Amino acid sequence: MSRFDGRSGPIRLGMVGGGQGAMIGSVHRIAARLDGDYTLVAGALSSTPERAQASGRELGLAEDRIYDDFTAMAIREARLKDGIEAVAIVTPNHMHLPAAREFLKRGIHVICDKPMTSTLADAKKLQAAAEKSDALFVLTHTYSGYPMVREAQARIKAGELGEIRLVQVEYAQDWLAEAPAPDNKQAAWRTDPARSGVGGATADIGTHAWHLARFMTGLVPEKISADLQSFVPGRALDDNAHVMMRFEGGARGTLWCSQVAAGQENSLRIRVYGTKAGLEWEQEHPNHLAITPLGGARTILSRGLAQNGAAASRMTRVPPGHPEGYFEAFANLYREAATAIRAHRTGAEVPGDVIFPSIADGVEGVAFVEACVRSSSRDGKWVSL
Amino acid sequence: MSRFDGRSGPIRLGMVGGGQGAMIGSVHRIAARLDGDYTLVAGALSSTPERAQASGRELGLAEDRIYDDFTAMAIREARLKDGIEAVAIVTPNHMHLPAAREFLKRGIHVICDKPMTSTLADAKKLQAAAEKSDALFVLTHTYSGYPMVREAQARIKAGELGEIRLVQVEYAQDWLAEAPAPDNKQAAWRTDPARSGVGGATADIGTHAWHLARFMTGLVPEKISADLQSFVPGRALDDNAHVMMRFEGGARGTLWCSQVAAGQENSLRIRVYGTKAGLEWEQEHPNHLAITPLGGARTILSRGLAQNGAAASRMTRVPPGHPEGYFEAFANLYREAATAIRAHRTGAEVPGDVIFPSIADGVEGVAFVEACVRSSSRDGKWVSL
Amino acid sequence: MSRFDGRSGPIRLGMVGGGQGAMIGSVHRIAARLDGDYTLVAGALSSTPERAQASGRELGLAEDRIYDDFTAMAIREARLKDGIEAVAIVTPNHMHLPAAREFLKRGIHVICDKPMTSTLADAKKLQAAAEKSDALFVLTHTYSGYPMVREAQARIKAGELGEIRLVQVEYAQDWLAEAPAPDNKQAAWRTDPARSGVGGATADIGTHAWHLARFMTGLVPEKISADLQSFVPGRALDDNAHVMMRFEGGARGTLWCSQVAAGQENSLRIRVYGTKAGLEWEQEHPNHLAITPLGGARTILSRGLAQNGAAASRMTRVPPGHPEGYFEAFANLYREAATAIRAHRTGAEVPGDVIFPSIADGVEGVAFVEACVRSSSRDGKWVSL
Amino acid sequence: MSRFDGRSGPIRLGMVGGGQGAMIGSVHRIAARLDGDYTLVAGALSSTPERAQASGRELGLAEDRIYDDFTAMAIREARLKDGIEAVAIVTPNHMHLPAAREFLKRGIHVICDKPMTSTLADAKKLQAAAEKSDALFVLTHTYSGYPMVREAQARIKAGELGEIRLVQVEYAQDWLAEAPAPDNKQAAWRTDPARSGVGGATADIGTHAWHLARFMTGLVPEKISADLQSFVPGRALDDNAHVMMRFEGGARGTLWCSQVAAGQENSLRIRVYGTKAGLEWEQEHPNHLAITPLGGARTILSRGLAQNGAAASRMTRVPPGHPEGYFEAFANLYREAATAIRAHRTGAEVPGDVIFPSIADGVEGVAFVEACVRSSSRDGKWVSL
Repeated sequence: MSRFDGRSGPIRLGMVGGGQGAMIGSVHRIAARLDGDYTLVAGALSSTPERAQASGRELGLAEDRIYDDFTAMAIREARLKDGIEAVAIVTPNHMHLPAAREFLKRGIHVICDKPMTSTLADAKKLQAAAEKSDALFVLTHTYSGYPMVREAQARIKAGELGEIRLVQVEYAQDWLAEAPAPDNKQAAWRTDPARSGVGGATADIGTHAWHLARFMTGLVPEKISADLQSFVPGRALDDNAHVMMRFEGGARGTLWCSQVAAGQENSLRIRVYGTKAGLEWEQEHPNHLAITPLGGARTILSRGLAQNGAAASRMTRVPPGHPEGYFEAFANLYREAATAIRAHRTGAEVPGDVIFPSIADGVEGVAFVEACVRSSSRDGKWVSL
Repeated sequence: MSRFDGRSGPIRLGMVGGGQGAMIGSVHRIAARLDGDYTLVAGALSSTPERAQASGRELGLAEDRIYDDFTAMAIREARLKDGIEAVAIVTPNHMHLPAAREFLKRGIHVICDKPMTSTLADAKKLQAAAEKSDALFVLTHTYSGYPMVREAQARIKAGELGEIRLVQVEYAQDWLAEAPAPDNKQAAWRTDPARSGVGGATADIGTHAWHLARFMTGLVPEKISADLQSFVPGRALDDNAHVMMRFEGGARGTLWCSQVAAGQENSLRIRVYGTKAGLEWEQEHPNHLAITPLGGARTILSRGLAQNGAAASRMTRVPPGHPEGYFEAFANLYREAATAIRAHRTGAEVPGDVIFPSIADGVEGVAFVEACVRSSSRDGKWVSL
Repeated sequence: MSRFDGRSGPIRLGMVGGGQGAMIGSVHRIAARLDGDYTLVAGALSSTPERAQASGRELGLAEDRIYDDFTAMAIREARLKDGIEAVAIVTPNHMHLPAAREFLKRGIHVICDKPMTSTLADAKKLQAAAEKSDALFVLTHTYSGYPMVREAQARIKAGELGEIRLVQVEYAQDWLAEAPAPDNKQAAWRTDPARSGVGGATADIGTHAWHLARFMTGLVPEKISADLQSFVPGRALDDNAHVMMRFEGGARGTLWCSQVAAGQENSLRIRVYGTKAGLEWEQEHPNHLAITPLGGARTILSRGLAQNGAAASRMTRVPPGHPEGYFEAFANLYREAATAIRAHRTGAEVPGDVIFPSIADGVEGVAFVEACVRSSSRDGKWVSL
Repeated sequence: MSRFDGRSGPIRLGMVGGGQGAMIGSVHRIAARLDGDYTLVAGALSSTPERAQASGRELGLAEDRIYDDFTAMAIREARLKDGIEAVAIVTPNHMHLPAAREFLKRGIHVICDKPMTSTLADAKKLQAAAEKSDALFVLTHTYSGYPMVREAQARIKAGELGEIRLVQVEYAQDWLAEAPAPDNKQAAWRTDPARSGVGGATADIGTHAWHLARFMTGLVPEKISADLQSFVPGRALDDNAHVMMRFEGGARGTLWCSQVAAGQENSLRIRVYGTKAGLEWEQEHPNHLAITPLGGARTILSRGLAQNGAAASRMTRVPPGHPEGYFEAFANLYREAATAIRAHRTGAEVPGDVIFPSIADGVEGVAFVEACVRSSSRDGKWVSL
């Protein structure tokens, strides 16, 4: 562990969404706390006032910083001397735009869950809002926070795989394999077009897989061809998608995302094949990265090894063999954001090695979802994003 | 090991192809020998007479049963009192039809390597020849000989997975990732349209993956959409293919085959997901089969366990933990063929539990290859087989 | 995630040791922060005053709560209205006793790193001190915080394995395979008898392996026979140990710990075999637990599955497939301690399901180390603890 | 596949033991057949005449070469012009000496199952008989036939691991975890001192583990300390053993063998740690060998890779990814024996790269068993072999 916790005073953080019964809000809070870079001081934690209040109290927020709606929170916090410097937005997708806009226009940094918005039109509006603002916008594509994903990116960039030919990425779960129980809030909004958007699995996890492929390889997409399905009777949105991909320069690939793959937990997996070597990484075993040269022996790199590059080593807290996982990856994004926010405090430039998914990634993610729907509705026609 | 070797006298076997420098001929011979069911007594082992002679002598064949061409062999062996009862055809694809025809029409059983022929037209001619003959035709889709593949088939048939929704099958290798050396005979014919047919990777290994998916699930194909590539400069045939599949009844899937996936050895892998459970099997770790119920714990079945069904147990020689592999799977097909041939000797019916890939599977395999090429040439249009 | 963060106000925490250049102090701080149960407000972070001051400032402690020595800290904090309620002791082993004693006698709870002390005599003194105090004593045998370790414990207790016959536990690392660099502080004290105690690898990691075996199985030790080695020239303490174990009732086992096993990272692994089933767990893949019934198929349980028992589910933050790791296990112990401390605040009883390693475990751990040394010095004579 | 099958005429083989109901006899026959090097022409397949006859007929032996006892077979076959050149002895342990002696003294090569004899006294008698004979003696320690075991041996010999410090070898099964069914012949003799000898698990599988450790590392044993158990009530021989090992030069190790480890199938596993790197190999996944340099990334070598050495490549039939298993390893020993026997035919020297376990290995194996028993009966005293 080369660095010390909580450098130069924690960042004052607010949260929109993430009240009682939510899952991802709690994940964001753990991620924010883990390295001591943030302190949660305000929240509009639910769209239901009673729940917002109860949730805020449970989290130990001061009474006057528990808000019933995010606009009031943005207005007041922006005026407070010790108001929040950043806000985490962890609502259903359709609320990302209206919430983020309020904070961005007041110069409050936004850390936003994915997919960025529920429609591409909204994504572009949010992009415009972010461009007008001096504040930072960070999209939590968690998996780009894993050290070995960054190691893979660095090695691909350095040419270790040669010219990339193939990218096979998949994200398989089974938690929506049956119609969800009525009280399952997380399932409810994700299968509801009004809140999720035009995509189901494609939006919820397909965007993660897409971002991972793009982040790791740097390949530029040309066209995709998609076949979307809704296996569960009565479901309005896709719960499985098969996508073929063509990249500029001739690389090809496939993306499979599914929330009905019985027995799969959270199996995000990517394989990249170049002219010189191939590479594999699995989110469920994130501390390792396998690289195999053409015709050679497989090498299993561990997080924390001395031979890893700076990009991975910066994201590592304990030596190899002490597994880091999902929270640590998430915390890595929060840490990158913290570094950027601290630079912003003093007007300094954000250090060049800081990496987090941006507003452009968010726009592209939603464009990917809409392209999948468009291609699938035209029987798999190849379409641009 | 519940059965005894070499039941009631070995079957007299001939071989076409498989001389010095070939690989698959040797595999067939080991498979034929392993259980003591066959004895190799004749061969037309090469199209080059000198090589045919030298190869035959090295194998210890009697001088008068080393042939320079398969037609002469078929004619003479059919007349001999102790002539061959079966022939293994292990030539490049384009010679399967002419060779098989000569033996089938003389009542000699044919054990033929895959893909069955180099064109669909040829496949249909061979089918006609087989239908006219009283002799058996066995296609060596090796992987259907693995006990745990049969266990999977039995469990799917019994409904353990519920209704099948998804089939993800892939077959990845890297041995053709670069232009092969000029003296690599195996690579040479496989990348030559005149000998391989219209398909490259699709024909050589895509047909294996297709057969495995069909064999294991019993799903009936509706349409496929394919994107084929030839990554190696100058290559006339595909060396990578992405295929999306639709089956009758609504199941979907993908098939990926590649001979340019750097670092992959012989990675045939299938995953099947139903409404109740999912299943995984990998050829490189063939003694295990993983089944996971929806939301439950993964179960790893081993070959040889008492709880396995009869179909797998019949194909098992040693207790769990004593790994059986590629040769044993291949030998299982030879053993099934032997049982059928012995039944044929006495006019008895072939026992109902004997399973081997048939002429119909062969026709379908070649139809699959041609459908891939057809779909890909029309930019991924969905086509029937 | 069924529970909410930071229940009813964080616990005020101090720290002894863990300043700049230390590793385990940082781990304790992350663990304490992760669930929002603690706030670090005071520290005597180094025995070197300059380092103590610099470290405290870096951690954002108030100037008047950065102490140069732990006694001063204990005295003053005990008098403060908002003084610390608990202290984490993360110094080298030989300082655990003097430090812990100062806090215990003032009613401040102690969370102490392992092994508990450097000698058995010290351990007994600490035990006496703890027994005299009303404060809690928590020993951070991290690995007992892993959910699947608790699942294993629960299943063994419920009889799923039948009567236990065998326990094979091992803890292999390689970080001390060579003489450490002079500036490696962590290596320096661990290989120094004055600070580590009579045991090297046995004390540092052997005690973890021993505790894990005892915690998971509940077996009561009878005798051990040990063969200790110091492979690195000039090393005063053992860096490898082979131990055979006999338990009451006839169960047997082996324990291997090594810090010179080249290529091993942090490979703590346990296997338990009973009359009905066997079980395996590996720290490097902590989210899974394998159980195999006699002659049956292996079942891989994942952390977070609905079928897991309450003991594991309580320790779980995210659904299966989202890996939790070392920090989360560590945080689980901090969380258990927090629950106990909060109960203590109000005079309530500590809930029955709260589990953390105790002073008795600490005494036994040091007794184990001394027994290893004693047996080894008598050429492997079987000795009691 | 670099070599051709059945070089220069098969070797005429006889068999003692291995009739109906036996397992290992069938394994030997498959191994002998696999590469076409042998032809089975005679047998004394059972000590029960009816079973001997029935078994011989089932295997298709000529009537006059089915013998009721091995002495008659040795006498007659030695006189036949086309009598057997070699005999496979696959009886229970106590019959190895009397059977082998009859053939050795008549110049017939012996391929003998392990352990070599049931007592050390017998082993020495057999050694004397072998030394007096011109015939070869081959002991089938199967696991030394695996290519990746030979790769490991070659790399250790070449110094890739540095100086060896530690050897951890284990062989765990569960098939004797309960009292066997009365009709289980294989279990019956292995748990009977009259037929197995003084050792149970130690003799049956402990000798395999011991041989593997010795074969792979070349370390010379100094002393061992053993703790043997018989967990199953009423069992006369050990079914589990823990052994600590000291080698010349200071290397240490442990050996664990068990036939009562519930859930273990045939888990022979070895790990070797040197000053520079560590290595792991598992029989249940025999096509891979893991080597990890101190502090570095793990490398997984596959059987069949171009980078493997000659010793492994000679033992390889198909490219990587086509799994070879137990029968192929066994066949490798038969193939080595065939090469030696063919050299013997012509009076040529056995090629230097031919490797098979010898009479000296057999003596040492039985000495190991007796040393275990001796040490255990003296409460783990360190004893020489």
